[in-house]
Amino acid sequence: MANLLPFKTITRYQHFVYPASHHTCNFPRYKYFSSLSVTTIISHRAKQANYRPIFDKLAHSSATQSSNMATTNAPNDEAGRPKVTLFWLNQSRAQRIVWLLEELGLDYDLEVYRRVDRLAPPKAKEIHPLGKFPVVKVNDDLLAESGFITEYLVDNYGEWLKPKDRASLMRYKYFLHYSEGSFMPPLLVGIVMQGVKNAPVPFFLKPLVNMICSGVETKYLLPNYKTHFDFLESEISQRPWLTGEEFTGADILLSFPLTVMKGKSIFTQENYPALWAYTEKLTGREAYKRATKKTEAMEGDKLV
Amino acid sequence: MANLLPFKTITRYQHFVYPASHHTCNFPRYKYFSSLSVTTIISHRAKQANYRPIFDKLAHSSATQSSNMATTNAPNDEAGRPKVTLFWLNQSRAQRIVWLLEELGLDYDLEVYRRVDRLAPPKAKEIHPLGKFPVVKVNDDLLAESGFITEYLVDNYGEWLKPKDRASLMRYKYFLHYSEGSFMPPLLVGIVMQGVKNAPVPFFLKPLVNMICSGVETKYLLPNYKTHFDFLESEISQRPWLTGEEFTGADILLSFPLTVMKGKSIFTQENYPALWAYTEKLTGREAYKRATKKTEAMEGDKLV
Repeated sequence: MANLLPFKTITRYQHFVYPASHHTCNFPRYKYFSSLSVTTIISHRAKQANYRPIFDKLAHSSATQSSNMATTNAPNDEAGRPKVTLFWLNQSRAQRIVWLLEELGLDYDLEVYRRVDRLAPPKAKEIHPLGKFPVVKVNDDLLAESGFITEYLVDNYGEWLKPKDRASLMRYKYFLHYSEGSFMPPLLVGIVMQGVKNAPVPFFLKPLVNMICSGVETKYLLPNYKTHFDFLESEISQRPWLTGEEFTGADILLSFPLTVMKGKSIFTQENYPALWAYTEKLTGREAYKRATKKTEAMEGDKLV
Repeated sequence: MANLLPFKTITRYQHFVYPASHHTCNFPRYKYFSSLSVTTIISHRAKQANYRPIFDKLAHSSATQSSNMATTNAPNDEAGRPKVTLFWLNQSRAQRIVWLLEELGLDYDLEVYRRVDRLAPPKAKEIHPLGKFPVVKVNDDLLAESGFITEYLVDNYGEWLKPKDRASLMRYKYFLHYSEGSFMPPLLVGIVMQGVKNAPVPFFLKPLVNMICSGVETKYLLPNYKTHFDFLESEISQRPWLTGEEFTGADILLSFPLTVMKGKSIFTQENYPALWAYTEKLTGREAYKRATKKTEAMEGDKLV
């Protein structure tokens, strides 16, 4: 029985996620289970050449040493590898967890969900009661919340993606909360207002709807965006990566709102040169490119 | 020089936050610094009777044992007490950090800011570049993001507010991210839409504004609220507290959105009896009542 956190049961999940021998197929040889209406199960073996030498040791020791979170999780397989499944939704924050898994060099399955009318399909609630993705299953642990997923995966399988010195570590922990807790919410308001703007109304009402949306934009959205981008520009001007000298999981977490906003009127190269260069450095990483390639193959669309 | 995380300088702050002997005055004997236009500095000595016996030992050992975050922070004072300041804004999420500090039995200063036109005053940006509170200063560490503040304070000064068994600990870590990362954002959208509803427009446009707001309410807000409350009702029906058998920092963090929504149309005793009872259990705690009393004295208003 899975140690589900914090959700009680995922009965459907247990029926078909682990077909025999799915661990042996290599990317880009996808396994499609076309009988499933909303999901596709894909197995990946991450490109071994990019593994850090430390990886095997970490995977072996993770159950007892890397984190006090892992002390009673089901053990990894004989080769010390965890069994990882990422529940993935197109056009969602799950994209950066693909990237994180690529950076970690972990094997993982992708269970693919597609939006219906811009929303996650109702079946998503069978995995997570909130119907929100990403959700990650690691052996018997089921994880949600991007900040927590990042923290867990890095603690257990990628110590090199966590800062060593105290000041950087504090920033790391701060930014794991900041990205979703502070930076994303105004973006969410923007998305909701975009929905209002695009909603079908009689043409003679359109100007008024636009006026209301502009009001929210001027009074709430733009000042908030500016505050966040000013803050991040100042932070990233002080050091090579978000938290210090080294690339960490916090950089991956912050990448989503940055790439979403890049090129939009507020976030231009002219307004925020350091943040722009940093975002380009993020998207230039090999693991990011691999993740994007995989994601685009599933999206059927070009990603940012 | 303060070890500011992640912010570079707070020059104003260093000038006047620590008047001599402020640590000796007892609640409810406030020290008001009326010459400061937006801030008031208040010193509290938390009610000793409610300290856990473990507290003194923890405070002494925190710098080296409780958490790897504290290894190079400035040391606590001779009695092993940290120097804590909470930057507090009326009608804000800072309220629950007062409660957390009361649960921890820590001495703390409150630097009080008041909203101007419903927003944090511009001076707030001198403390935190985002102009968002709560911000907490612990010795030389400056902390923001409620989830991170809670994690830090509990790790360093209140191990008894952290679960002992693994499943509960995983839930704890999950909920530290969930409260701000998932539960608060739809509430924020609600607040913004409330602003739209209340904005001054010619009377003949009012019905249309209301129509748009109702649209967002029906299509986005209510389904989202329902999803979250259903989820939390199910979670809290399974155990005495949010994460397990014991009250933890995660209960404190979740309290804010719950008390804000309690009694509103969606969150009634009838709809969510277990969650309602749980919220009453939270607000019935002695430390919560002390925090509320202090906060109400500053708010000049009754809190929920």
